Amino acid sequence: MEDQSTQKPDGNIIYVGSKNVMSYVLAIVTKFNQGSTEIQVKARGAAISRAVDATQIAKHRFINTLEITGFKVTTEELQSEDGSNSRVSSVTLTLKK
Amino acid sequence: MEDQSTQKPDGNIIYVGSKNVMSYVLAIVTKFNQGSTEIQVKARGAAISRAVDATQIAKHRFINTLEITGFKVTTEELQSEDGSNSRVSSVTLTLKK
Repeated sequence: MEDQSTQKPDGNIIYVGSKNVMSYVLAIVTKFNQGSTEIQVKARGAAISRAVDATQIAKHRFINTLEITGFKVTTEELQSEDGSNSRVSSVTLTLKK
Repeated sequence: MEDQSTQKPDGNIIYVGSKNVMSYVLAIVTKFNQGSTEIQVKARGAAISRAVDATQIAKHRFINTLEITGFKVTTEELQSEDGSNSRVSSVTLTLKK
């Protein structure tokens, strides 16, 4: 069973959250080693920087041919407990090796 | 005289650092209002998330037609005082309205 918090079994999507950056580097490298040719890395808010770092570490240390082929930004609305809305930026990076 | 810490007089480049995100939103909107058709927003490390936020706030509140047309990631090596190198991710977003 894979770690559900970083990888979904149904797709090549890695969700980057608040864990150590190396967790996500490992997730990226593992996905490619399992035969994936394209991976999507998603993050929102402060985790966006970590997602970018993870792709760069994966490229420089493990998969030199890795490229970011796509970049999409959206804004998600979150509702807080008092009913007010706050917006958070969400980024999807598409990686190919 | 423009604020040199966020804008360079010689180009349409906005450097995102540790100021409040609205400082950079204002810088983006001002550049476009001054007639720029294309702006580059640069950030590294933890400021990458702030740069993405600034583009989204500028789009949703001020310039609805704003699009991110380019996205480039590089890794910069910084030398620390003890002579060791650390790497930091750097992102350049290209905006058009």
